[in-house]
Amino acid sequence: MPAQLGELETPALIADRQRIQTNAERMLERSRRFGFALRPHLKTAKSAAIAAIAHGGAKGPVTVSTLREAEYFFANGFGDITYAVCITPNKFRHAVDLIDRGAELKVLLASESVAQSLADFTQGRSTPVNVMIEIDCGDHRTGFAPDADELVAAARRIQAGEGVRLVGLLTHGGQSYGCKSTAEVAAVAEEERTSLIRAQRRLADAGFEAEVLSSGSTPTATMGERFDGLSELRPGVYLAGDLFQAQIGSCAIDDIAISVLASVIAHDPARNSLVVDAGALALSKDRSTRASPVDYGYGLLIQADGRPFRIDMIIAGVSQEHGQVTSREPLPYDALPIGANVRVLPNHACMTAASYHKYYVTDGVGTEIVAEWDKVSGW
Amino acid sequence: MPAQLGELETPALIADRQRIQTNAERMLERSRRFGFALRPHLKTAKSAAIAAIAHGGAKGPVTVSTLREAEYFFANGFGDITYAVCITPNKFRHAVDLIDRGAELKVLLASESVAQSLADFTQGRSTPVNVMIEIDCGDHRTGFAPDADELVAAARRIQAGEGVRLVGLLTHGGQSYGCKSTAEVAAVAEEERTSLIRAQRRLADAGFEAEVLSSGSTPTATMGERFDGLSELRPGVYLAGDLFQAQIGSCAIDDIAISVLASVIAHDPARNSLVVDAGALALSKDRSTRASPVDYGYGLLIQADGRPFRIDMIIAGVSQEHGQVTSREPLPYDALPIGANVRVLPNHACMTAASYHKYYVTDGVGTEIVAEWDKVSGW
Repeated sequence: MPAQLGELETPALIADRQRIQTNAERMLERSRRFGFALRPHLKTAKSAAIAAIAHGGAKGPVTVSTLREAEYFFANGFGDITYAVCITPNKFRHAVDLIDRGAELKVLLASESVAQSLADFTQGRSTPVNVMIEIDCGDHRTGFAPDADELVAAARRIQAGEGVRLVGLLTHGGQSYGCKSTAEVAAVAEEERTSLIRAQRRLADAGFEAEVLSSGSTPTATMGERFDGLSELRPGVYLAGDLFQAQIGSCAIDDIAISVLASVIAHDPARNSLVVDAGALALSKDRSTRASPVDYGYGLLIQADGRPFRIDMIIAGVSQEHGQVTSREPLPYDALPIGANVRVLPNHACMTAASYHKYYVTDGVGTEIVAEWDKVSGW
Repeated sequence: MPAQLGELETPALIADRQRIQTNAERMLERSRRFGFALRPHLKTAKSAAIAAIAHGGAKGPVTVSTLREAEYFFANGFGDITYAVCITPNKFRHAVDLIDRGAELKVLLASESVAQSLADFTQGRSTPVNVMIEIDCGDHRTGFAPDADELVAAARRIQAGEGVRLVGLLTHGGQSYGCKSTAEVAAVAEEERTSLIRAQRRLADAGFEAEVLSSGSTPTATMGERFDGLSELRPGVYLAGDLFQAQIGSCAIDDIAISVLASVIAHDPARNSLVVDAGALALSKDRSTRASPVDYGYGLLIQADGRPFRIDMIIAGVSQEHGQVTSREPLPYDALPIGANVRVLPNHACMTAASYHKYYVTDGVGTEIVAEWDKVSGW
């Protein structure tokens, strides 16, 4: 195992364990204060080691966005898994297979026809498939409106199925990503909460019980003010942090725990530019901060040991394996000779981490590698 | 092995073998007509099966963008490999190790200091490390200007090293991606050609031989008119095609050979929208067609069997595992029930293919899976 970041081939994905622990502890403290359970969304980190940190060391409940992630976390001892993307019939067999091997998997749906298909598929099962119904709290991506007749119809299909069981309702206030203030985010958190409670009452009035209310996103979990009535929250990117989350106030730049180690491969003083070997695949083409108060291009450079530079240097352009760095200040070429290492903080940690097969782990400021963590990717 | 696309979990990466063969044959025909050798850039396909098709079945010369790709192609019998991203000292050991295991690897540099470091590192080797020097033909990413004094200085460092050997010059006319007409692309092809020839003469005047002249990008290889003096071309995305290449004229939409199989997971008739399970990771966040005559958002829908739909439906928005589909026409919900399969043609095949671990292969129009091809990803 390499002992120092300087021994790695670049690009490489770096996780700062100390920062992840601090980020995790901050959310655990909120969960204790407000009395909600945490079911962190591991679509960002895709790592069993990071999932354990999120639960203070325990193999607690997790959320995933693919069945491949479900397989990975199940294989790593995380049995209580919510697969939080609406399921389609071509995934029924895999989901049921996971359950038959012992996973406490909950699947999501927001369609009467899928509810019926799943009821048909699971006909005669002894272990029921646990179902969450998705509620649209204003993000308008997927989910039933809390007062939709189709919500009741879907619940009826599930209730009628022998092999399926309705366990609860799930929502995601994705519109929080467009908020411009803490108060706006708190209002979205309240939309998440009240949408779930309204939908739960609606179902209760029709004779259906949906016990678990599952809400959350990193901004709403971090800045929300009321969580009463909710069973659990599913923030994810809070463990990593990123430049976009820093811009909307979910974290500080110094909280960002995931970065990409890169090497300087070319200088171009005539254009006040230099090139690093982290490009569109290593960083992703995410441009989330384009509409933010500060636009960080494709990422912000920090020193190889994790400390900030004195000036802002950003990745202004990317091609597949090249990142073009520039700054409003003259670039410090002497401090960044060809071959020198830097790290790049991501715009969007979920997109950046996805391309890598493992994390190299540091522990606070420094270049010592204290661990390697595997991770999952793809489908 | 699944026999039909309908049996796959989605999203899944699909390759149409017939189209890849047609795309490959078209470029092979140009290589015969103009007398250049082909060293296809496999950073797009990242697949040994596709590399073989590019050479009409032979394990011919390849170009790669990472040493992980170099390892993969070497393991699959492709020994003649050019690693076409400027090398940094932290990759010397790996490159030399590949050479010591028998790979005919050529590395790239465009820095006097890296040339010196490599000469030092390879001091006393019996098998020399073959080096290409990168020339900037106007893309201004990496590479020496053809008339730069540093070019001669770097060649001198290489010449003086016992364990390194200068084999040639390499350029990439990436500025062709900004062209608006065939004539503009042909002019970039000529810039590639003349830049290499000028640099070669410059070195010859200084007493250094750089025999191999390596040029190319898909647009310039497809639309260039003169290639005399060049040894080889390195187009890559031509094997796959994509919506951006179609817009700049490198291919037709019907030539696009790589697509993403997705399932409809939600309908939203009030917004004339529907959602598929291919989002930002499955398609990438590439928005290359944003500035093109037609903006395809994050991709264009075609039928599951590869035929076009009668109306244009595009992915207008993405989140991690969700793609939001819309159209200027009313969406045909009846033809696209929840659970139905579609395919999505990519904006940028290189970005889209990168996230997947394998290809499911069809052979022309249809939904039968005729093969599975492995591929490499990550670093």
